[in-house]
Amino acid sequence: MDIDALASGILASDRRALARGITLVESGRDDHRQMATELLEKVNAQGGGKSALRIGLSGTPGVGKSTFIESFGMMLIEQGLKVAVLAVDPSSARSGGSILGDKTRMDRLSREKNAFIRPSPSQSHLGGVARRTREAIGLCEAWGFDVILVETVGVGQSETVVAEMSDLFLLLLAPAGGDELQGVKRGIMEMADIILVNKADGDLKATATRTCADYAGALRLLRKRPQDPQGFPKALTVSALEEKGLAQAWDEMQALADWRRENGHWDSRRAAQARYWFESEVREGLLSRLSKEPLKGAMQALSHDVEQGELTAAAAADRFLRTYLQS
Amino acid sequence: MDIDALASGILASDRRALARGITLVESGRDDHRQMATELLEKVNAQGGGKSALRIGLSGTPGVGKSTFIESFGMMLIEQGLKVAVLAVDPSSARSGGSILGDKTRMDRLSREKNAFIRPSPSQSHLGGVARRTREAIGLCEAWGFDVILVETVGVGQSETVVAEMSDLFLLLLAPAGGDELQGVKRGIMEMADIILVNKADGDLKATATRTCADYAGALRLLRKRPQDPQGFPKALTVSALEEKGLAQAWDEMQALADWRRENGHWDSRRAAQARYWFESEVREGLLSRLSKEPLKGAMQALSHDVEQGELTAAAAADRFLRTYLQS
Repeated sequence: MDIDALASGILASDRRALARGITLVESGRDDHRQMATELLEKVNAQGGGKSALRIGLSGTPGVGKSTFIESFGMMLIEQGLKVAVLAVDPSSARSGGSILGDKTRMDRLSREKNAFIRPSPSQSHLGGVARRTREAIGLCEAWGFDVILVETVGVGQSETVVAEMSDLFLLLLAPAGGDELQGVKRGIMEMADIILVNKADGDLKATATRTCADYAGALRLLRKRPQDPQGFPKALTVSALEEKGLAQAWDEMQALADWRRENGHWDSRRAAQARYWFESEVREGLLSRLSKEPLKGAMQALSHDVEQGELTAAAAADRFLRTYLQS
Repeated sequence: MDIDALASGILASDRRALARGITLVESGRDDHRQMATELLEKVNAQGGGKSALRIGLSGTPGVGKSTFIESFGMMLIEQGLKVAVLAVDPSSARSGGSILGDKTRMDRLSREKNAFIRPSPSQSHLGGVARRTREAIGLCEAWGFDVILVETVGVGQSETVVAEMSDLFLLLLAPAGGDELQGVKRGIMEMADIILVNKADGDLKATATRTCADYAGALRLLRKRPQDPQGFPKALTVSALEEKGLAQAWDEMQALADWRRENGHWDSRRAAQARYWFESEVREGLLSRLSKEPLKGAMQALSHDVEQGELTAAAAADRFLRTYLQS
């Protein structure tokens, strides 16, 4: 595979090159991994990345996530923006049906030449899904997308993973009867920059307004974060179905992004995320190399001595680390 | 600290040396860790270990674990055996009160010169508690104990951890009304070699007998394991309070242990456990060295380049691993 050509293609906004690049970063093969690392490095060196607004979006099934992405994405497209949609769904390998797997759920958006929709890679290991999505974001930025939406259903730790690769984090919720806050975990609330109560239409409109007020109240009780201007985090109602409230939501996202850019929070957040992912890559890389030659062989030889009772586990591990880890 | 003297003391059944040795393996200090590794190695080289019967014991609070250990331990002591009691309790650091923390709960046993009771180390990290308990087992074996009881309350993964350091695994349960199996997880049932239904005395005697029959039925439904002779795993009733059924339980444990020794399962289980702990030590060791000099400094330098956007996380991790991991 010609990595130079692939990098140039992506930087020249070639859709097929982008799709092939993402397939490469999704591959589990060792030689593909090396090429993927090289591709990301080339794209990065040639000035790709860092220009898009990365928006994380979480919401449980049934809140209308696909409809929201379709309506919101189409509105951005109509404003002349280029929009990519990616997903982090560690459950897709097991359930078979991934979120975004069915592009027909985003029928209009998927036919736009300035839109790009990519389902979650089918890996059950969250670390693997996270890395591929993060690297796909890098390639989408290099391609020239203005907005990258990363959605998750919020299985296990996936919200945290998405928040660690986003500039803004949206929580999409459905209207709920009563003043009960739908059992949203405090940790998720604390991650959200903007809560969107969807389905503010028809019979549910009044309920949506009330639910939104409840969440606005709950958000005010949270500790003030340095990365928030006055009034954030905030709760808004939208109707993805009737395409209402989307423009206001986008205004709020831009206002928040602008404020963070001006106040240095944008850069410091991206730097902290880069550090987080680097440390994660090192940890995963260390553990993965233990299961491959030549380290695997060295492990087996020492393991044999431990099994025979000739060495304790602690002494054998110490010997292994002294031998194979440079200091 | 004179490690040679400490090793000799432990091998000569000096109680103070044993207590000091366990304190050493429980220490989090780097220099202590080195000395602990050396101590274990010396004890191992001089033929310590491998002779005791290691019995894992799990049971939720309220089933009478302390009373059982006291009665069962005293019975073994009266037979001329030496008994050590250790604990794996990852919650003890948080809750303040550790299991075994209060020796008065085992008043008679704690006063016996052939008994040794050591509470769980106060660390909240299960990996840390596991390593220290496993190393303490090694020192107790070298000291000359015949039976080592390792108890756990079964918080999170602690049963698995205890099973990975035991020759036999006991599950202690209380009598339960109805035919409901007290919500014992299938995974825990599958680990058990012998289920003991305690409190088979007074008003609860009939209930205990019924509960025992229920568990015996449930055990028969489990898949046959190669490490079990005919009739195992099995369920028995005991009364720790009235000291009834303990001799029969001990007979069953010995019969199972003898069968496994004769059929090679004993050695293969200990070998598999040794391998498991060696691999665990290597993984923990790798991750722990990342947070210490000189690797910490190298990580920070590369992290800086990643934060500045000069290197991707993948390329930086690759460079780190190539430089610091010998191949």
